[in-house]
Amino acid sequence: MSVLIVGSVALDYLETPFGKMERALGGSATFCSIAASYLTEDVRCVGIVGADFPEEHITYLTSRNIDLLGLIRMAEGKTFSWGGRYHEDMNTRDTLYTDLGVFEHFHPVIPEEWKKSEYVLLGNIHPALQMEVLEQIEDPRLVVCDTMNLWIDISRKELREVLKKVDVLILNDEEARMLTNERNLIVAGKKMIRMGPKVVVIKKGEHGAMLISKDNYFSTPAYPLEAIKDPTGAGDTFAGGFIGWLARSNDVSVANMRKAVVYGSVLASFCVEEFSIDGIRTLNTDALTERFTTFRAMCGF
Amino acid sequence: MSVLIVGSVALDYLETPFGKMERALGGSATFCSIAASYLTEDVRCVGIVGADFPEEHITYLTSRNIDLLGLIRMAEGKTFSWGGRYHEDMNTRDTLYTDLGVFEHFHPVIPEEWKKSEYVLLGNIHPALQMEVLEQIEDPRLVVCDTMNLWIDISRKELREVLKKVDVLILNDEEARMLTNERNLIVAGKKMIRMGPKVVVIKKGEHGAMLISKDNYFSTPAYPLEAIKDPTGAGDTFAGGFIGWLARSNDVSVANMRKAVVYGSVLASFCVEEFSIDGIRTLNTDALTERFTTFRAMCGF
Repeated sequence: MSVLIVGSVALDYLETPFGKMERALGGSATFCSIAASYLTEDVRCVGIVGADFPEEHITYLTSRNIDLLGLIRMAEGKTFSWGGRYHEDMNTRDTLYTDLGVFEHFHPVIPEEWKKSEYVLLGNIHPALQMEVLEQIEDPRLVVCDTMNLWIDISRKELREVLKKVDVLILNDEEARMLTNERNLIVAGKKMIRMGPKVVVIKKGEHGAMLISKDNYFSTPAYPLEAIKDPTGAGDTFAGGFIGWLARSNDVSVANMRKAVVYGSVLASFCVEEFSIDGIRTLNTDALTERFTTFRAMCGF
Repeated sequence: MSVLIVGSVALDYLETPFGKMERALGGSATFCSIAASYLTEDVRCVGIVGADFPEEHITYLTSRNIDLLGLIRMAEGKTFSWGGRYHEDMNTRDTLYTDLGVFEHFHPVIPEEWKKSEYVLLGNIHPALQMEVLEQIEDPRLVVCDTMNLWIDISRKELREVLKKVDVLILNDEEARMLTNERNLIVAGKKMIRMGPKVVVIKKGEHGAMLISKDNYFSTPAYPLEAIKDPTGAGDTFAGGFIGWLARSNDVSVANMRKAVVYGSVLASFCVEEFSIDGIRTLNTDALTERFTTFRAMCGF
């Protein structure tokens, strides 16, 4: 099945206790697309890059079978860039800078032949842009929406409008608490269900993830990692793996979404083991299957 | 199978955002024993109380089939008392006071007929007292040890000696990090395995629990609760449920310990729903089974 992914494509500056990296390939659409590409074939990426965007990244993304028809390549201007520094415990980070570059005036344009995409992932971008995407697509099978604290903070109203129109909302624990003003995540999950989405997935980093629907509750631990080098993109990778599995199996039942959560977790576990996209740059199916199997083994009793 | 439990018996002062309670029945041996009593029949409690200890508590514990032969009832002096105030998020608390009372000069004496107890739970008390218990028991099938940040802080050396002699160590995430000086819990778990215990169980509160052995890793979420009234005794209740299940099934395999972790979690989930022991004061087997089944249902994929 086809998966349409809209988000940012970035060249980031990353600093963690394990090192730093300049002009690192990043952005929500990038991580989402790469992750989804390991599970399903027809991945369609919508975004924008500037004149400084290295050709090698285009070559790489294309090699992953990611269709870049919707990626606007500006002849001028700079690619979106985010600079971040992670603290010692990797759970908190400081934003050093945000250079919007060509992203400042970006409006997603969905190519005509993509308007009937079956699975749609609204990556983590401004809710007004997510809404523009929703207005262009026709009769999708499933719409998944990612977001972040920034939008909850400065664009809550627009976000609430988007939420009325999506099937699945993915966000982290801190964001869930912020959006609902509830500390308890079960209560927060139920509150978000009343905002529109049929299913809410709350990511809890090293503590795993929860899936909440009106009458279903699923909770899974994180893949046990002894070392994390760079958490950047883990959330996007999770979302990409989540929708990638649903598209591959073409089954949007809540039962199948549990598996999708685990695939998202598996892909995110690879992501954080290296800087930028390096942890998911080249994975083979066996590695994915092995971690999925480990997940099952570590949860059973 | 017989379960010998050693720990404190207390009359606590509790304050949470949901209210307060004076002279609340508490203490590690109390919570552990009550929890274990729901799973196995021969529960033996070793501890000490002062002249102020209400007869009704004795009556209640006896009604739960808990053998109090090892509970010293002093004709003078006050029962151990701890006062604590929980913060708004329930994750942190301040100790308001600690009155040792008769506990100050307590040395556990294991009744002759209890020295061959099969399952031994060293509840959360000073490691030197835990060691005194170990020196009195003969050839136990399994020794489980609980501890807390205080002992890691002030009696690390004695605790390390105890750890050499126990099969299972139960502690929470903060304590695991403190004991090992490692932030990553997987790494911390492996480090603790090298200190002596064959199995380490790390409790993570609302995030569930992990079990780590040399070649086994198990992780389970917490039971989803929308409201928590009083977390006091949750850890002890977990430990009691854990050893209670092992004793009931008389199976100390790591596979069976996974079930024991879930029973511990189930019992702890009841504990925190009310003040003091009220959440586990009267449970029926159906309620336990129902939550155990819910656990299984919420983890499957």
